[in-house]
Amino acid sequence: MTVIALLSVAPVIEGSMSGEVAKAVDALEAYDVEYETNPMGTVIEANDIGELFAAAQAAHEAVDGDRVSTVLKIDDKRSRDVSAEQKVEAVEEHLGRPATNRDEREDEPEAE
Amino acid sequence: MTVIALLSVAPVIEGSMSGEVAKAVDALEAYDVEYETNPMGTVIEANDIGELFAAAQAAHEAVDGDRVSTVLKIDDKRSRDVSAEQKVEAVEEHLGRPATNRDEREDEPEAE
Amino acid sequence: MTVIALLSVAPVIEGSMSGEVAKAVDALEAYDVEYETNPMGTVIEANDIGELFAAAQAAHEAVDGDRVSTVLKIDDKRSRDVSAEQKVEAVEEHLGRPATNRDEREDEPEAE
Amino acid sequence: MTVIALLSVAPVIEGSMSGEVAKAVDALEAYDVEYETNPMGTVIEANDIGELFAAAQAAHEAVDGDRVSTVLKIDDKRSRDVSAEQKVEAVEEHLGRPATNRDEREDEPEAE
Repeated sequence: MTVIALLSVAPVIEGSMSGEVAKAVDALEAYDVEYETNPMGTVIEANDIGELFAAAQAAHEAVDGDRVSTVLKIDDKRSRDVSAEQKVEAVEEHLGRPATNRDEREDEPEAE
Repeated sequence: MTVIALLSVAPVIEGSMSGEVAKAVDALEAYDVEYETNPMGTVIEANDIGELFAAAQAAHEAVDGDRVSTVLKIDDKRSRDVSAEQKVEAVEEHLGRPATNRDEREDEPEAE
Repeated sequence: MTVIALLSVAPVIEGSMSGEVAKAVDALEAYDVEYETNPMGTVIEANDIGELFAAAQAAHEAVDGDRVSTVLKIDDKRSRDVSAEQKVEAVEEHLGRPATNRDEREDEPEAE
Repeated sequence: MTVIALLSVAPVIEGSMSGEVAKAVDALEAYDVEYETNPMGTVIEANDIGELFAAAQAAHEAVDGDRVSTVLKIDDKRSRDVSAEQKVEAVEEHLGRPATNRDEREDEPEAE
């Protein structure tokens, strides 16, 4: 069984949120989960749904603020063990290429 | 402090999901939360973030299936008590009318 | 074919958002969609996916702010016509009661 | 102005979704956006909100299925140019380390 989720925790403040988001990410260290942050949240992988919810709650509570907005999107595969990495690899196998165009665009000359 | 959230729990099955969704809604009864289901999920209101996460986890686990997809969106107002109902009323005050066009459209004759 | 979605558009500001949210709701009037706002967003129903995306974009752009956060969750049933209302009715049929506990709790005496 | 979003498009089918998800990712190639797929969706970066919505709609429509579930989460920074990469870098600066524990855990010996 693999539970994979995207967690986004953000204080509703007009300045930079990154200091508070860092606290949310740090809070995950206390849990038996793998995590990797991307520009729209942190992908979390756990073997146990309880551990995932506990980690998400800790991250939410780690952020200070009068108003905190959190989104948790869970993909709970209960009968198969497909890792987070394998999910992307399966898509790339169908694409026949990496599932990104970042590298190509970095090599392109800036539009005049 | 009021924590308001939208919870959507769905088994990834090709037939009707409503029987399983009903189990998720029923699971909320065991928690000190107010809830109301709409076509895209259930709005949940709690006084305590721990109670909200516990109720969301119970609803997720109440649904049977090889693969279960859950989205939890939380609006955690920690310094003010604004009820779920008051959030909609505040928008309607600015609109100067109900925040829906359902009633008007039900009175319109069907397009020939 | 019925496309049902939940749209939440919010300016990232520390004060009340309801004035700006009202602009997003108002923007939906120009489109062939049914909508109803709840405490966590607006449920939108359309017969055409293009109309849904156009309405969501208009609502997003109607909100002023240096930073705007929008979530759009779409349930696109392409081979069956199940209205938004019917989705909730199907869950309530399985529950054997309304999919809410709001009314019961309103009748309960306030905890001493 | 930079618009950053997370897009997740999935057919509601009981088998593997990766073939259809690959079609959604491929559909982004026709648009002036940068994208990178992760285990919970594809982060998309655009300079124009219209281009983002058009790309998201094309990806949604590229997926075949009787029922298609799509989530689009948008972070629209209208007054500052902060790239997707810079968002993660800012969090890592506060953390004082990479915003992931994947590498550490890969070096740990498997639990006996």
